[in-house]
Amino acid sequence: MEKLQSVPTLIDIQESHEAIIQMVERTPVMKCKSLNDMSGARLFFKCENFQKVGAFKMRGASNALLRLTEEERKLGVTTHSSGNHAQAVALSAKLLRMPAYIVMPVNAPKIKMRATAGYGAEIIPCEATLASRETTLEAVRARTGAAFVHPFDNYDVIAGQATAAKELFDDVKELDAILAPIGGGGLMSGTALVSRYLSPKTKVYGAEPSAVDDAFRSLRAGRIETNATTDTIADGLRTNLSEKTFGILQEHLDDIFTVSEEAIVEAMRLVWERMKIIIEPSCAVPLAAVLQNKEVFAGKRVGIILSGGNVDLEDLPFGKVL
Amino acid sequence: MEKLQSVPTLIDIQESHEAIIQMVERTPVMKCKSLNDMSGARLFFKCENFQKVGAFKMRGASNALLRLTEEERKLGVTTHSSGNHAQAVALSAKLLRMPAYIVMPVNAPKIKMRATAGYGAEIIPCEATLASRETTLEAVRARTGAAFVHPFDNYDVIAGQATAAKELFDDVKELDAILAPIGGGGLMSGTALVSRYLSPKTKVYGAEPSAVDDAFRSLRAGRIETNATTDTIADGLRTNLSEKTFGILQEHLDDIFTVSEEAIVEAMRLVWERMKIIIEPSCAVPLAAVLQNKEVFAGKRVGIILSGGNVDLEDLPFGKVL
Repeated sequence: MEKLQSVPTLIDIQESHEAIIQMVERTPVMKCKSLNDMSGARLFFKCENFQKVGAFKMRGASNALLRLTEEERKLGVTTHSSGNHAQAVALSAKLLRMPAYIVMPVNAPKIKMRATAGYGAEIIPCEATLASRETTLEAVRARTGAAFVHPFDNYDVIAGQATAAKELFDDVKELDAILAPIGGGGLMSGTALVSRYLSPKTKVYGAEPSAVDDAFRSLRAGRIETNATTDTIADGLRTNLSEKTFGILQEHLDDIFTVSEEAIVEAMRLVWERMKIIIEPSCAVPLAAVLQNKEVFAGKRVGIILSGGNVDLEDLPFGKVL
Repeated sequence: MEKLQSVPTLIDIQESHEAIIQMVERTPVMKCKSLNDMSGARLFFKCENFQKVGAFKMRGASNALLRLTEEERKLGVTTHSSGNHAQAVALSAKLLRMPAYIVMPVNAPKIKMRATAGYGAEIIPCEATLASRETTLEAVRARTGAAFVHPFDNYDVIAGQATAAKELFDDVKELDAILAPIGGGGLMSGTALVSRYLSPKTKVYGAEPSAVDDAFRSLRAGRIETNATTDTIADGLRTNLSEKTFGILQEHLDDIFTVSEEAIVEAMRLVWERMKIIIEPSCAVPLAAVLQNKEVFAGKRVGIILSGGNVDLEDLPFGKVL
């Protein structure tokens, strides 16, 4: 397979799916009667919290690494990430037996640093600023010649993330709507593309914390807007859109819902209590949107991509003042 | 179906399964690569934490209520419980449209009281002693004529709990061993019976907190021993065995492992972190036993009944000194 140079087609996504199938889990779709009762909709949860490394990021990272040339594989891969993408690149590199160099800010959670190092990646610490991340990454590339795998501004990554929604459409017929959270927009872009290709009547919605509503504002303004703050509990959604994801979302997204921090924690609590599964705050955002917009989803069949389940068990938000 | 008057046979368990199938979930069996690596065994987890009311108790309660006569159904059911059995009886009674009267100690978790009341049961508070529970229950029976469904000293309940292991044997072939936690012994009795009937070569093990090791001591002494304390985090396993469960376990159990409080919390944390599912402390006890006795299970195919997932999210043990 070669690297994708333009917006992934259905064939691209199908080929990506066939390629990564050996490297990722086929995650289950779960239902929950009490959440159906509460929302008035029929909800189908695609459980990427059960994915390898605990998040959908494994799909995009593995697809991007599989598309590197033999030459590139020898030199290895690099990325900067404080979270799930770091682990996904590290594990994918391990499975494909290539070196990985991960730039991580010094304030990244220790547990994620350990997990990333545990996959055999070299961790290169940097300051907790975008400037430091980028200069450190450039230094790594200069030293190693490793290929950079951007967490979302990359069509191979987007095609990989699309496979989660593809499996959901394979397993559940006639969805009236599908939702995913929006951070940098990689998962949302893949979800939107595959929905248009496989089920054009399905409404495609994004969900975003009000505190970091850059995607919501970008789509309304017709240009990429940025966040003034990263102050949300949904730590996976603090990023701004990129050129590639903005382009796809502008064309294929029906709407974006924004939700409060309290609504995110409440939705997260409901999933933990009613479904008995662990999701991270970012992952609760689409359910929060459904519960706050019941009139939109009443009586509908609604797919929700549960994006991940990596939380610090010693620092949970339940019962805390936000 | 009539009430069972003696140790359930395979036919009894099969009939119970057919009867309750409409009232319970067929729960999935999950696997986890990292827990396999850690234990050296191949583990198959039967996820009763996903069962209705969040615990296997729904199986026994529904089976017992289905076996009441028409006359008894009109008068309703009663039980005393501070936990999952209360909710299971209440929900079963609701589904079968009969009254339920649940005696609950005043110190029972408020969330469980609310859930039980939410199923339409009448809650009768009592003091937090066995004597108060029993006198209050007798008063309820005198007032209402309701049938008493004991949480485990009841062959209908035992036959119902057996259906969890039955489904596990239906789904996973050639288990070398199967484990369940032991509280009053209802789940363990059902698990042991169905193992003997369907897979006589499978070793059947119980697991118990060292702090409340009444079953361990009872089997060694050849008579029912009681606990001097209820001081364990595994709140579902504080109960002593009864005549009926002791008799079954004495005949059919291969051995019992006991584990420390620290080992229970560590096993619970591993399931939360690695499997991304929520289990309660009682439910973690068999995995703790496997991880502490690796030589017994090395290279074996091991079934574990995950008994339930009801925890207070605002009072979790992670990072606390026990």
